[in-house]
Amino acid sequence: MTYHAGRHFLQIPGPTNVPDRVLRAMDMPTMDHRGPEFQAMAKRVLTGIRTIFQTDNPVIIYPASGTGAWEAALVNTLSQGDLVLMYETGHFASLWKKLAERLGLRTEFIEGDWRHGADAAAIGERLAKDGGHEIKAVCVVHNETSTGCVSPIDAVRKAIDAASHPALLMVDTISSLGSLDYRHDQWGVDVTVGGSQKGLMLPPGLSFNAVSDKAIAASKNASLPRSYWAWDEMLAMNESGFFPFTPATNLLYGLDAAIAMLHEEGLANVFARHQRHGAATRAAVEAWGLEVLCAEPAHHSGALTAVMMPGGKGADALRKAILERFDMSLGAGLSKLADKIFRIGHLGDFNDLTLIGTLGGVEMGLGAAGVTHRKGGVEAAMEVLVSASGSEARQAAE
Amino acid sequence: MTYHAGRHFLQIPGPTNVPDRVLRAMDMPTMDHRGPEFQAMAKRVLTGIRTIFQTDNPVIIYPASGTGAWEAALVNTLSQGDLVLMYETGHFASLWKKLAERLGLRTEFIEGDWRHGADAAAIGERLAKDGGHEIKAVCVVHNETSTGCVSPIDAVRKAIDAASHPALLMVDTISSLGSLDYRHDQWGVDVTVGGSQKGLMLPPGLSFNAVSDKAIAASKNASLPRSYWAWDEMLAMNESGFFPFTPATNLLYGLDAAIAMLHEEGLANVFARHQRHGAATRAAVEAWGLEVLCAEPAHHSGALTAVMMPGGKGADALRKAILERFDMSLGAGLSKLADKIFRIGHLGDFNDLTLIGTLGGVEMGLGAAGVTHRKGGVEAAMEVLVSASGSEARQAAE
Amino acid sequence: MTYHAGRHFLQIPGPTNVPDRVLRAMDMPTMDHRGPEFQAMAKRVLTGIRTIFQTDNPVIIYPASGTGAWEAALVNTLSQGDLVLMYETGHFASLWKKLAERLGLRTEFIEGDWRHGADAAAIGERLAKDGGHEIKAVCVVHNETSTGCVSPIDAVRKAIDAASHPALLMVDTISSLGSLDYRHDQWGVDVTVGGSQKGLMLPPGLSFNAVSDKAIAASKNASLPRSYWAWDEMLAMNESGFFPFTPATNLLYGLDAAIAMLHEEGLANVFARHQRHGAATRAAVEAWGLEVLCAEPAHHSGALTAVMMPGGKGADALRKAILERFDMSLGAGLSKLADKIFRIGHLGDFNDLTLIGTLGGVEMGLGAAGVTHRKGGVEAAMEVLVSASGSEARQAAE
Amino acid sequence: MTYHAGRHFLQIPGPTNVPDRVLRAMDMPTMDHRGPEFQAMAKRVLTGIRTIFQTDNPVIIYPASGTGAWEAALVNTLSQGDLVLMYETGHFASLWKKLAERLGLRTEFIEGDWRHGADAAAIGERLAKDGGHEIKAVCVVHNETSTGCVSPIDAVRKAIDAASHPALLMVDTISSLGSLDYRHDQWGVDVTVGGSQKGLMLPPGLSFNAVSDKAIAASKNASLPRSYWAWDEMLAMNESGFFPFTPATNLLYGLDAAIAMLHEEGLANVFARHQRHGAATRAAVEAWGLEVLCAEPAHHSGALTAVMMPGGKGADALRKAILERFDMSLGAGLSKLADKIFRIGHLGDFNDLTLIGTLGGVEMGLGAAGVTHRKGGVEAAMEVLVSASGSEARQAAE
Repeated sequence: MTYHAGRHFLQIPGPTNVPDRVLRAMDMPTMDHRGPEFQAMAKRVLTGIRTIFQTDNPVIIYPASGTGAWEAALVNTLSQGDLVLMYETGHFASLWKKLAERLGLRTEFIEGDWRHGADAAAIGERLAKDGGHEIKAVCVVHNETSTGCVSPIDAVRKAIDAASHPALLMVDTISSLGSLDYRHDQWGVDVTVGGSQKGLMLPPGLSFNAVSDKAIAASKNASLPRSYWAWDEMLAMNESGFFPFTPATNLLYGLDAAIAMLHEEGLANVFARHQRHGAATRAAVEAWGLEVLCAEPAHHSGALTAVMMPGGKGADALRKAILERFDMSLGAGLSKLADKIFRIGHLGDFNDLTLIGTLGGVEMGLGAAGVTHRKGGVEAAMEVLVSASGSEARQAAE
Repeated sequence: MTYHAGRHFLQIPGPTNVPDRVLRAMDMPTMDHRGPEFQAMAKRVLTGIRTIFQTDNPVIIYPASGTGAWEAALVNTLSQGDLVLMYETGHFASLWKKLAERLGLRTEFIEGDWRHGADAAAIGERLAKDGGHEIKAVCVVHNETSTGCVSPIDAVRKAIDAASHPALLMVDTISSLGSLDYRHDQWGVDVTVGGSQKGLMLPPGLSFNAVSDKAIAASKNASLPRSYWAWDEMLAMNESGFFPFTPATNLLYGLDAAIAMLHEEGLANVFARHQRHGAATRAAVEAWGLEVLCAEPAHHSGALTAVMMPGGKGADALRKAILERFDMSLGAGLSKLADKIFRIGHLGDFNDLTLIGTLGGVEMGLGAAGVTHRKGGVEAAMEVLVSASGSEARQAAE
Repeated sequence: MTYHAGRHFLQIPGPTNVPDRVLRAMDMPTMDHRGPEFQAMAKRVLTGIRTIFQTDNPVIIYPASGTGAWEAALVNTLSQGDLVLMYETGHFASLWKKLAERLGLRTEFIEGDWRHGADAAAIGERLAKDGGHEIKAVCVVHNETSTGCVSPIDAVRKAIDAASHPALLMVDTISSLGSLDYRHDQWGVDVTVGGSQKGLMLPPGLSFNAVSDKAIAASKNASLPRSYWAWDEMLAMNESGFFPFTPATNLLYGLDAAIAMLHEEGLANVFARHQRHGAATRAAVEAWGLEVLCAEPAHHSGALTAVMMPGGKGADALRKAILERFDMSLGAGLSKLADKIFRIGHLGDFNDLTLIGTLGGVEMGLGAAGVTHRKGGVEAAMEVLVSASGSEARQAAE
Repeated sequence: MTYHAGRHFLQIPGPTNVPDRVLRAMDMPTMDHRGPEFQAMAKRVLTGIRTIFQTDNPVIIYPASGTGAWEAALVNTLSQGDLVLMYETGHFASLWKKLAERLGLRTEFIEGDWRHGADAAAIGERLAKDGGHEIKAVCVVHNETSTGCVSPIDAVRKAIDAASHPALLMVDTISSLGSLDYRHDQWGVDVTVGGSQKGLMLPPGLSFNAVSDKAIAASKNASLPRSYWAWDEMLAMNESGFFPFTPATNLLYGLDAAIAMLHEEGLANVFARHQRHGAATRAAVEAWGLEVLCAEPAHHSGALTAVMMPGGKGADALRKAILERFDMSLGAGLSKLADKIFRIGHLGDFNDLTLIGTLGGVEMGLGAAGVTHRKGGVEAAMEVLVSASGSEARQAAE
């Protein structure tokens, strides 16, 4: 393997670049998870994480990947054979559906073209037809990591309400939480699924369920077998700052630091930064003469941008060339998008100059790999950044 | 809270003291879990972990606590309503039983007095009566963390074989793996459950299933719903060094380092060290005129020692006094042993002098808390250490 | 080399055990030493370090070992051929004398037996005879690291004053600062020399000159050549939070953390802790039937204890045995004490249980190396610790 | 202060970005500097550092800043009143001259315009006139950090030889060592001065003297007072892997790692990388319509590029704007260049994409600060990088 100087550019759409402060917070001795020092830290984290989900309700923290939190959301609230309405935003929505089926649920997919977020109207229409309320839950991915399309959760909520349907609303925010504005309470979400390794700037290993009162009520009657994922004991023990089984102590140290950092920057600033980076990246893609996968401007993601290869193939060769020559990791196209797209992650602990380096790597890589394109992408991105940061600076000054 | 200088003595029976080398290995940037650098590391870890379980078969690594690996062992191999024979070695055996029941399994407990490891003969007798092979699995805790008693797994295997019973043998090694000699293959275990935060010297957050061919075969027909814990996709993807969902990358870095360290010391030396520390600790307890909870010398643990309070109470006040005055965490008595015992962890990354400091803290704490005892425990322990290390040194020299 | 599990016991009298918090503070990116973030940190450190020397005057921080700060004290205040009165407390006093001579100064040594601190009366007598004020400076080591004897600086000051002698008083506190009570201003010291790697709990690499107004005045006329060590530019630039040449940025991060930790514990508590550990160690030595090198109880050090070998030799074989079998480093006898003593460091980030482990290692090592001694040293030390910590606890409660 | 997400861009010409691996190597417990483990590490470092200076002779390692190593070079080889010929390449050459004078040496400066490296012919002419060999040393800065001009050391050596002059040749490589090709032995340098915080990728705190036999011989007769800097004891003790006073242990850990990294990349690759980055940066400067300070193409530096402000002022306002809006530190103009230039450091642990981010920050900053310039600098730099890395890749493949 070629030796690379300097820092690797980890520009996949997660795991993201973990800040030194978070890494160093985790690089401390593991403590007694039944002692007073742990308890104080855990209470702070359990309270703080609510602010990130924008909820006043409890958030459950699992020592697990995001996939585990998908499973937790379902097994706590549903029963064998329940019907779940899911929306095919892309690869991860499809995986969630597959997972639901393995657990013994019935699923129904509203088909999508992997170039848009969820269509709230379509969801509303389907629910309106479900007079018998056979559908027990609606599952939507907020930021589809495989496509870079954002689903309008607020609109989905309104569509459910308009249909007067009692289904639970479950939302996957694994790649949006801490990067894009997300409001568990205000948008009336029943279970929000989150993970540590994207906007929360942590390594993978923690995942989350933010819950509504309605979800908790549903969990009393849900009969899918569960133990590790069971909310009841977790919620009971969390009240005193403890956990029913050994928590991932050092990742919690990191979460404690990450929550503090997000608030030091200010959530509004965090969200604006991601929007700015999404806009700059799309400006670069356009300047290159390439096409952004997400076809609906209102659904463009501030967390990642998926770019379509001219000619519909060769993305993996491009990514390989960029990795070898410029030491940057980009996201691959997944399942039916394999080799057709590449994904640029611009989420987490990230700033303007690193974005410029990232886009420079793509532009040079396009050249090196012989992909037809125009130059000037980086310059176009810089124009967006300068005018955006200027306008943000003015706002802050006013 | 009082300020304490120097290092905290974390002498609970896990999580254990994480070596600097492991902490620093984890304190590195998270990498692309789909890239070649990750792949090389993962292959090394997936191979290396087998040596710790002493198996040639695959070991599955979950981003989860040990409790998750308990669940994984059951849901992969059993079906709704299956009968599982479990042995009541103590609190953790009881929790595993409760977990099995929550998952929809039927359980049968061979009662124990929490002062012995499992009785292989009793298991054999029960199986002999199960002519219809209703019992699908036998579950035993190798090192019962709540009592400090070790179950003779080899004898249990022989008892099952003697009864010609097809039940799977599942063993919890969460607090023994990497500390006590444990042989997955030689002892014919079907599923071994392990965790990261004890003998493996890592923070909590990883857990393991070592599997036999028979267990894998059973998993083809087992019908408990599972997805996150499912072995099939995991085993398939692990072959190429990847995982079906985002692994806990930085904990894997630590595991890589920890496996290397165990082999640098030599597993035989690791095991001998733990036996020596167990013997020294028991010598101290005896000198103090106190009683070790584990009533069967053949079951004494090298990983922890549970000590009975004279008069049968006051352990928590003692632990609190020791924590406040000497900055040492000891393990509490759990459920029916609450306040009646305290547990001294001497497992993981630990050495003679730290053991002396630990026992010194207990001896001084007994005095400070007004617990009736004789002095001389530390001196007794030192005699054991000197003669043991001398004999080990001689052995190494020969 | 034998593999050793657990933490090494670094019980030399410095460098000492660096706390994780200090190590992690240093494990952060180096910053621009001419930027505003550095400036804020440097100002905090330059102010904070004064509190450790107990002075309101400036303290100069060098990127250098303590030896450099010895040189700095001399070259800033003296001229070629000046006579310096030094006191032979032991090896380090002798090295300082040798250094002074290499710099072109004349030195006069008041002989000592390496078993006492400086004799203030003898210093006073010598100065009284120096009617012509040929002696320009009196140099004394506060805590002689090679012997474990503490010199009464306050008494030395009074002796100088009683002789109405204008000589500067220079004191080496390399192994006492941050461990033993030391008062630069109250004791009227002109230049105090300090180092980072002992009571300040840092790695080696920083050293200090705390100065008096009189010392600064002397520096205006002193003619020894100097540039790196020159106070003038340093004091001028420090006022704005900068340095005349690149400072050791990451060690300053650590110093920032260390100063905070010393104040969190409270200097009075830090000093009491060291006194307690000195007393406990001496109790162990006495119980073993061995002799403490320092022959004057009023000069006993709370930072280290030097122990005489019965028969006057074999200390190095003992230290080697302890290093190999118990993974503990002890200090060697230096120059004329070579092989005759060993030194137990109990300074810096250190606590009761680590002291017990340390003394246990010595007691076991004495046995393993076949050194004539009685047992019971650790028990004796524990009695001191229990009664001391009890009395301190009572004091704190009152 | 504004909160900044992501990593700070530390693009001053040193201290440079310290790699995680080096930081983590230093983040380990300090060890006994008189023990066998230290000895093994020190021997490895003392041998390894020679390869970086490209010398077979010893290299002395000081716990000190580079300024200390300047002083060490002079005090070890010269005597009071000796005449030293120095070349005014810029600010640092001027500081070295000032330091020499403070030490009691006489200096003569060959004037320069701060836009070129040293003129070997001028040095040769001056020496030729020095029939009486009054000049005892010639001092040249290899890479003048204040200007970004490189002096042709090989030519200087030849000029000295052509003049048959016995003066010692002393070279400052503080900002070139480990970045630019430098050959202590082949170029016949007598004392090379180096520092840790630039191409060696360490924090500041270590500095170096690489010596020739002739320099060591000179040190026997040199009479400037010295002790801390004295080579004799250092060389004697280094032979066994030890030091005459406490070394900066943790910085040595880092140096050990840094030397390994430089060889893993390969020194030739390291040097080529820096040349590529210098060329790309100059292409950007030219595209912006700005002027590089260094006026002689043969003297252009691969370690940093100094850029002249159009109109001759406003550099500090530009740097401030860039720091505040883009979180990047650039180097200031020093003394007579104050506010007239800014300096872009591209040395140390640095790669193509970080350079693009750096240049993007400058380009955006020029716009934000209203500095007259053309766009397209980043694009011009990318062209250089692509063609250079392509050519290097082809070379490696051949």
